[in-house]
Amino acid sequence: MKPTLPDAALAQLFTEARTHNGFLPNPIPDETLRALYDLLKWGPTAANGCPARFRFIKSPEAKAKLKETLDPGNVEKTMAAPVTVLIGYDLAFYEELPKLFPHTDARAWFANNEALARETAFRDAALQGAYLILAARALGLDCGPMAGFDKARADELFFAGTTIRSLFLVNLGIGDPSKLFPRNPRLTFDEACQIL
Amino acid sequence: MKPTLPDAALAQLFTEARTHNGFLPNPIPDETLRALYDLLKWGPTAANGCPARFRFIKSPEAKAKLKETLDPGNVEKTMAAPVTVLIGYDLAFYEELPKLFPHTDARAWFANNEALARETAFRDAALQGAYLILAARALGLDCGPMAGFDKARADELFFAGTTIRSLFLVNLGIGDPSKLFPRNPRLTFDEACQIL
Repeated sequence: MKPTLPDAALAQLFTEARTHNGFLPNPIPDETLRALYDLLKWGPTAANGCPARFRFIKSPEAKAKLKETLDPGNVEKTMAAPVTVLIGYDLAFYEELPKLFPHTDARAWFANNEALARETAFRDAALQGAYLILAARALGLDCGPMAGFDKARADELFFAGTTIRSLFLVNLGIGDPSKLFPRNPRLTFDEACQIL
Repeated sequence: MKPTLPDAALAQLFTEARTHNGFLPNPIPDETLRALYDLLKWGPTAANGCPARFRFIKSPEAKAKLKETLDPGNVEKTMAAPVTVLIGYDLAFYEELPKLFPHTDARAWFANNEALARETAFRDAALQGAYLILAARALGLDCGPMAGFDKARADELFFAGTTIRSLFLVNLGIGDPSKLFPRNPRLTFDEACQIL
């Protein structure tokens, strides 16, 4: 059996990792964004469909467009973050299945079942967004995920003419610990789980 | 800035981790399932809503019920796994928000907006399912996530009389490397990502 990761790694990934509301000005090099994708891409999705699409919003021009879409409470921290990831889900992800899942005709499972394709794209892009959060933490970055933005407007600004739809945002950078909120509680094991 | 995790940890979590189709008979103690929840519970969700609910299916009786719901291709490996996690999403997760997000009335954001509550529950339980997969790998376990089962029947068998709905399954255990399939390719950075 493989070992449990060292406590410091578990702390960095889970037990001491926090959602950050402020970021230091340190930039994130493009190579770090590529290293991030090269980790998260290995996370599992149904039939290896990999429906998530990522827009790493970094330039002043792209950040100004993003700002238009944000709920007021999310503007300041997002403008301070060196990079914000817009995670989308491609409703036509199944067109890649002949390449991604070559041993059977998985494309046919989705191409004629729009409800299944939509649910799979949405669910598995959410999984991939979670892989991104944990991969970023594994690389020493802090994250601030957000659902509070105008998704239809973000679709127009960032995914026009495509089959990609906006799912959620993640600010990336080095968090400013002075802007953390007190940590909220979680459900207990007995509230959330049963062993059957 | 925090360090990048050691290569061995990145391999165990991402680059060498595989979806397993066979499991060795080694059991998983209940304490390991509690340790698993005590890691994954810290992963972020919108307004700390924590909508996922987990059923750790372990006894012969519970496994026999689960077997009824499985697609034929998922039966053998699931019956071999020492534990299968049924991940559900609670449509009424917002009833816990006065406890989980106590500084504002977040319950009201969802209680009168069924579409938003459903989308949030589904999306964020998927995030939590991904946290479970990576937390299990961090504890040295192997995973086999699956979407191929009768969710309506699983709702009847495992969530009757509740507001919880089935999302996906994850087999847990020590994987049998002889039953791995060849690894499928992933989209390249340029296929899945843009830096803007």
